[in-house]
Amino acid sequence: MVLVSRKEHFNAAHKLYNPAWSKEKNEQVFGPCANENWHGHNFELIVTVKGKPDPDTGFVIDLKKLSLLIRTEITDQLDHKNLNLDVPFMTGKLASCENLIIEIWKILEPRIAAISRYGRLHQLRLYETPRNFVDYFGEGQTS
Amino acid sequence: MVLVSRKEHFNAAHKLYNPAWSKEKNEQVFGPCANENWHGHNFELIVTVKGKPDPDTGFVIDLKKLSLLIRTEITDQLDHKNLNLDVPFMTGKLASCENLIIEIWKILEPRIAAISRYGRLHQLRLYETPRNFVDYFGEGQTS
Amino acid sequence: MVLVSRKEHFNAAHKLYNPAWSKEKNEQVFGPCANENWHGHNFELIVTVKGKPDPDTGFVIDLKKLSLLIRTEITDQLDHKNLNLDVPFMTGKLASCENLIIEIWKILEPRIAAISRYGRLHQLRLYETPRNFVDYFGEGQTS
Amino acid sequence: MVLVSRKEHFNAAHKLYNPAWSKEKNEQVFGPCANENWHGHNFELIVTVKGKPDPDTGFVIDLKKLSLLIRTEITDQLDHKNLNLDVPFMTGKLASCENLIIEIWKILEPRIAAISRYGRLHQLRLYETPRNFVDYFGEGQTS
Amino acid sequence: MVLVSRKEHFNAAHKLYNPAWSKEKNEQVFGPCANENWHGHNFELIVTVKGKPDPDTGFVIDLKKLSLLIRTEITDQLDHKNLNLDVPFMTGKLASCENLIIEIWKILEPRIAAISRYGRLHQLRLYETPRNFVDYFGEGQTS
Amino acid sequence: MVLVSRKEHFNAAHKLYNPAWSKEKNEQVFGPCANENWHGHNFELIVTVKGKPDPDTGFVIDLKKLSLLIRTEITDQLDHKNLNLDVPFMTGKLASCENLIIEIWKILEPRIAAISRYGRLHQLRLYETPRNFVDYFGEGQTS
Repeated sequence: MVLVSRKEHFNAAHKLYNPAWSKEKNEQVFGPCANENWHGHNFELIVTVKGKPDPDTGFVIDLKKLSLLIRTEITDQLDHKNLNLDVPFMTGKLASCENLIIEIWKILEPRIAAISRYGRLHQLRLYETPRNFVDYFGEGQTS
Repeated sequence: MVLVSRKEHFNAAHKLYNPAWSKEKNEQVFGPCANENWHGHNFELIVTVKGKPDPDTGFVIDLKKLSLLIRTEITDQLDHKNLNLDVPFMTGKLASCENLIIEIWKILEPRIAAISRYGRLHQLRLYETPRNFVDYFGEGQTS
Repeated sequence: MVLVSRKEHFNAAHKLYNPAWSKEKNEQVFGPCANENWHGHNFELIVTVKGKPDPDTGFVIDLKKLSLLIRTEITDQLDHKNLNLDVPFMTGKLASCENLIIEIWKILEPRIAAISRYGRLHQLRLYETPRNFVDYFGEGQTS
Repeated sequence: MVLVSRKEHFNAAHKLYNPAWSKEKNEQVFGPCANENWHGHNFELIVTVKGKPDPDTGFVIDLKKLSLLIRTEITDQLDHKNLNLDVPFMTGKLASCENLIIEIWKILEPRIAAISRYGRLHQLRLYETPRNFVDYFGEGQTS
Repeated sequence: MVLVSRKEHFNAAHKLYNPAWSKEKNEQVFGPCANENWHGHNFELIVTVKGKPDPDTGFVIDLKKLSLLIRTEITDQLDHKNLNLDVPFMTGKLASCENLIIEIWKILEPRIAAISRYGRLHQLRLYETPRNFVDYFGEGQTS
Repeated sequence: MVLVSRKEHFNAAHKLYNPAWSKEKNEQVFGPCANENWHGHNFELIVTVKGKPDPDTGFVIDLKKLSLLIRTEITDQLDHKNLNLDVPFMTGKLASCENLIIEIWKILEPRIAAISRYGRLHQLRLYETPRNFVDYFGEGQTS
């Protein structure tokens, strides 16, 4: 089994805000991340697929197809967008990296299985900044 | 003459939008950067000071003081902010990197002269993304 | 379960030296790293916390609190210090990255549990240079 | 158990080409990677060794010895070479990163065991570009 | 005057070889770079345009247009290509970075002037590896 | 005229300390950088040579020879050393980056002229950390 990874990026705005709370409580909990006028980041997304290399191609998955899938399904939906307002799959969810990476997994996991004979989604990593990032291995999975 | 540089960062939202134009013209010219719901970036700012090293300290400028100055005067005003709505020195200006770097120069140039016996502001570099950046050497100066 | 990571840094001096050995044996084993006048590095420390996102905040752990904890407990003790001479928790230990990362774990593991309802320390990574680094998952744990 | 990693690099040419297929099928499957005149990359290889630190040295493995081993056995064989034509251990194999990382494992795994009392090869990571990379944990192992 | 820069990349094969010399002399002068079976790199190209920001857009040059121009005229001609065999504008020239950057300048300089009212090509930087790079400011210009 | 650059690195200890001052004044001026037990950094040095490409090689300067020269004359003298105690050319000088880059220039400038028919030393850049760096263009020269 080999792991194959592809990194893509998107630039987006968001705020951290729980609508069940007062403005004061949001500012107390989320600090400057709760700024009602938004802030933003250059996000980097790494998608890792695990499987046996296909003997005919030497590939676990064709990275051109994986890149195209990530762009079509994920980064085209997120790039130059507002994560709280513009993204259907984030509607009604707190726009944290933890919640975002779980939603990205739900979209990519079946689609990668559909385009790859040998590979299955194994890990996602999402950088919000070079110093803050999250990883997800799917429900019930551990690293 | 030695050049001494310090890199700081801030995360902000903005949109590119000329209020004298229709929404359609803005979208035509600025594309996804005109999204009315904003997008954002992890900006990196490099401030370069030029001068002779002080014989007593070996410093052109004390980088701890320069870092504090950049944070107080610039990045505290920009970090987790909306460049179009929250930043007094950008009011009424298009929130492009070109315009932003010129305004940062106007603020830093006299304040660096005030804290440094030997150094003068020489260059600013502002990264919007790792692939897009601008440089400024002050009015009338060339690289 | 989601993994959340924060990167911090510190600049320190050290030497690799076993006081039970002669100077010649130290130089033979550790080479230039045994220089009695010290050398140093820009270290980078990545702290990874694992847990379920809190439904109220979308956070496994508040990264502002995690960053403050790492700075107070770890990097303030190490930054601009000599790892062999100035750091109480390294006294009597060889100043290798392997030993340092184990001691950092012992300090952070209970303190992260104390400030986070959902998250537990999962992994540490310590870069000595961009080309040399170590990882630790705690005693008895494997990646 | 601590993981210790060393990063090395090599610059090489290759093409992706299955000699059992026509030129047209190769171009259809591999796209520009099938260019018969070759293309190339700056590859980065990270070798991770897992074990207990030696109490006398604080080391899982001596990184100077590991670096020398990687250079002698791997990167000297690959640097400024053509992966399809010049590398004995890749003869008859598709020059994909997946196949390359498996062959590197076969060479390094016994040699690391031979030079290290405490450490065993745990993971290889091979970057073809900053955006495309593969990982391998050995046959039968998972991350 | 503000400088605006855009970074693009391409992956290519080449060799350093002077056909007026014997194979032995080529190997003596160029070492492993003369390998007749080629080697390759992930090249990074930074294009810097200098000018006044357009008051209507805040732009010296539209970076989307500049990116498209660099891709169409330069990186589409070089990516996944052999610099010695596949690139018309390098025919008959030694495939060094110095020669390549001068040819890229000749192509981009008039085309940037044609698409930009305010900006003129000011500087090119070409990274062959993260440790080796060249800069060019045009004939007769100095930094 | 083309500029050709090579990046090398060294890991060293130092402290900022003016022996003409009291310990208290050193701590007041230099803060934690004055720690008498030293601290250290992973330094990166970029050496830029300017000249016309040699028509026979396409080179301004042979980067293998430049790399060997930098290692022999500079980084072998600085790597795993104490800049205050172990480096003859820094004796009696404050171990600031400004002073260090000027001394490196004095050593490299004539030696580069001696090995290169076409190239002359144009610029040095020295990174103390990824956020702090200095540049030098030689006495009387400006960027």
